[in-house]
Amino acid sequence: MSSADSVEVVDSSGLRYDTISFLSDFGTADEFVGVVHSVIRSIAPNVGVVDVSHGIPKFDTRAGGLALARAANYLCPGVVVAVVDPGVGTDRRPVALEVGDGMSILVGPDNGLLAPAVGMVGGATRAVEIRNPDFLLPAAGGSTFDGRDVFAPAAAHLCLGVPMTDLGPEIDPASLMPGVLPISRFEPGADGDELVCEVLWVDHFGNCQLNVDPLEILTLGSEVIVSINDDDRVGLRAEAFDEIPTGRVGLVVDSSGLISLAVSRGSAAVELELGEGIEIRIRALPDGDRPRGAVTPVQFGTRPDTQLGEL
Amino acid sequence: MSSADSVEVVDSSGLRYDTISFLSDFGTADEFVGVVHSVIRSIAPNVGVVDVSHGIPKFDTRAGGLALARAANYLCPGVVVAVVDPGVGTDRRPVALEVGDGMSILVGPDNGLLAPAVGMVGGATRAVEIRNPDFLLPAAGGSTFDGRDVFAPAAAHLCLGVPMTDLGPEIDPASLMPGVLPISRFEPGADGDELVCEVLWVDHFGNCQLNVDPLEILTLGSEVIVSINDDDRVGLRAEAFDEIPTGRVGLVVDSSGLISLAVSRGSAAVELELGEGIEIRIRALPDGDRPRGAVTPVQFGTRPDTQLGEL
Amino acid sequence: MSSADSVEVVDSSGLRYDTISFLSDFGTADEFVGVVHSVIRSIAPNVGVVDVSHGIPKFDTRAGGLALARAANYLCPGVVVAVVDPGVGTDRRPVALEVGDGMSILVGPDNGLLAPAVGMVGGATRAVEIRNPDFLLPAAGGSTFDGRDVFAPAAAHLCLGVPMTDLGPEIDPASLMPGVLPISRFEPGADGDELVCEVLWVDHFGNCQLNVDPLEILTLGSEVIVSINDDDRVGLRAEAFDEIPTGRVGLVVDSSGLISLAVSRGSAAVELELGEGIEIRIRALPDGDRPRGAVTPVQFGTRPDTQLGEL
Repeated sequence: MSSADSVEVVDSSGLRYDTISFLSDFGTADEFVGVVHSVIRSIAPNVGVVDVSHGIPKFDTRAGGLALARAANYLCPGVVVAVVDPGVGTDRRPVALEVGDGMSILVGPDNGLLAPAVGMVGGATRAVEIRNPDFLLPAAGGSTFDGRDVFAPAAAHLCLGVPMTDLGPEIDPASLMPGVLPISRFEPGADGDELVCEVLWVDHFGNCQLNVDPLEILTLGSEVIVSINDDDRVGLRAEAFDEIPTGRVGLVVDSSGLISLAVSRGSAAVELELGEGIEIRIRALPDGDRPRGAVTPVQFGTRPDTQLGEL
Repeated sequence: MSSADSVEVVDSSGLRYDTISFLSDFGTADEFVGVVHSVIRSIAPNVGVVDVSHGIPKFDTRAGGLALARAANYLCPGVVVAVVDPGVGTDRRPVALEVGDGMSILVGPDNGLLAPAVGMVGGATRAVEIRNPDFLLPAAGGSTFDGRDVFAPAAAHLCLGVPMTDLGPEIDPASLMPGVLPISRFEPGADGDELVCEVLWVDHFGNCQLNVDPLEILTLGSEVIVSINDDDRVGLRAEAFDEIPTGRVGLVVDSSGLISLAVSRGSAAVELELGEGIEIRIRALPDGDRPRGAVTPVQFGTRPDTQLGEL
Repeated sequence: MSSADSVEVVDSSGLRYDTISFLSDFGTADEFVGVVHSVIRSIAPNVGVVDVSHGIPKFDTRAGGLALARAANYLCPGVVVAVVDPGVGTDRRPVALEVGDGMSILVGPDNGLLAPAVGMVGGATRAVEIRNPDFLLPAAGGSTFDGRDVFAPAAAHLCLGVPMTDLGPEIDPASLMPGVLPISRFEPGADGDELVCEVLWVDHFGNCQLNVDPLEILTLGSEVIVSINDDDRVGLRAEAFDEIPTGRVGLVVDSSGLISLAVSRGSAAVELELGEGIEIRIRALPDGDRPRGAVTPVQFGTRPDTQLGEL
């Protein structure tokens, strides 16, 4: 479907990209994910498909965008297909976004889903609206499954070397729907400054990731007051889930490098009645209650080299 | 295990088929799916396995057959393994069914599961009962896991080029258990003709697919009465989920080309208390209630070329 | 990262191992599994990853160990990554265990998870503690995701031919945490000898696997008394789930070669209120109640050749 002279640099396998990373809210009960895999394989049989997750809560573009951003540094260079798409069939645009000067291309709906990951790797260097029917499947019925009919075939053709600009007209990256992420902030409270933050993500184990960098709470001490719905608990800094004493709330630097609330061998979300988006306030213990002796600062690892694009 | 002269046409990789599409009711909590993958890989390491779905409701051959039929047009040519098999270990036959004159072979129990997909691609051109122990695994215990011991090794050997007829004796395709699918029909009702149909499938998002072709309700208008358990609601024809106004029931042409009941960013199954097999009646609005002006007919896409077999 | 002279025997693809089998309690809602796949693919792109299961109950090393042992005979030779790791980040050791004189290597935490599978294939022939940062990823934050930062990169490098002893210091296999599996036993009871056993595993279908070899109950007859919490039921030996009469409890030789309690097209776990670890007592029917005529012994299949290691 593309002439040889328009094909971009390819590797020894004849592929421009050999990996498609795929994230969606399709769940695994139905055949949606399998059909997308089949469409990709029928167009580009030698491309490997890595399922990032298909358990994004239905229609939740914020949760999908955060999951993609958390994974982004670890994904193989190549094409990313992300589909959380409540507006499928409407005039929201299907887009392909180049990052890292071509190291990777993200494909999905222009509804903010791709924005956090794209932002993490330095923004889109080029963008197109996917429209060219030569590289799409004709819909069998209504336009309700663009994952199958638009995003999968577009991604597979990109792997084969079809130039991104063959998929449709270039659009201004600045016109893309932004992702809106909550920023934590310090506010004066009755007992001193409070860090106002919120739960970004509750994981499978019930750990509650906050939009808090460990540096933000370094000065508050190894024990802090964690206030949830005006209910105060003492939170303990810990370096491992299993170091949190039974019955206590731990603050752990998690695998994304952010602070997560956790309990030992249980679900912090269940025990603290927390969910995504719930506000949390963190403040220092009153002076009299502060533990004596040295505060152990958390050790920071360095982030591995980014795979997906260039920071 | 097969002599060179009995091997059928192979591709450059030395494989007769390079893809196994795999559907089951095994769920993903246990190691069943992984063990089947391992068995295939140990016999035919270069074959790609595409998981169509393992979330078919337990023992539900109808639901499994419908899922396979919905996916069939998109599956790669090759071998399909489908296992929803409450009768495993009894005298129900394990079978391999050739479709499209050898373009694909479906492997599974002869219990109606394979029938809808086989029907969609024109019926089986040949069939065998899988019996030859040379191409099966010895059961480690009882005969309770034919996915592992019978269907996976049979499929892997088919990919390697073992002729289907080496797996066991040919059987008459007409002797295979049929799949029984409900047919929708028009019946006279108190307020004019009613289309009597039922819910074929509730998907992950709660959309309820009906056994209704859009052409059947084209003449009823852009708004119709949808009657569920004698409770009447006004249903609105819509081309995208997000075009359905909040609080309204939409009738959308879905990705299979059938009519689905849907609500915007919610579950029609939950809101309408619908499940698979429940009867629905659809009729035109009474004259006085019909919206004025032009009725917008749904746009039909064309079906892409069938992959699995020949229509 | 490894010099040519230290690399072990490789196959024609240049790989020492071409398969990683991966089991965890990560669930499939989050991106954990996809990130591990991505890390492996970024290091060893030509290695195939088979997902054994990611539905192990959270933190349940016993359940994970049993699942791995059940699967072990069917896994492809290669590297096994198993991660059920409540002690991640503490001083529990990350280890690599060689079995079958190098046929396979199991990678995971030293917390008993690997023990049942290693025991099944004859024990570890060598063991190392994984410590060498050259073959690991730097943690992006805390040490809470060793699947990504330790086990996946270690496994990928083993596939590339990095000698196991390059990963860290050798340790004594006898120092590894054992897996403790319950042994069934006969005890004198009020109505004769009772086999005291327990539920090892409740599968997706609700079948309840017992730690009972069919030979142990062969002499008890084709019908037995199954006592659960002092509630007696008559259990019927059956060779297939569908041979169990409705309303009866069946004892079936399952796909692991052990006895499972089952009901026809339903969940024995739900109907009998059973869960993993619950004690069961099995005894012969009183003489007067014993069925007349021949008792049909269960047919035993032979186990296929072990793939993972050597028995």
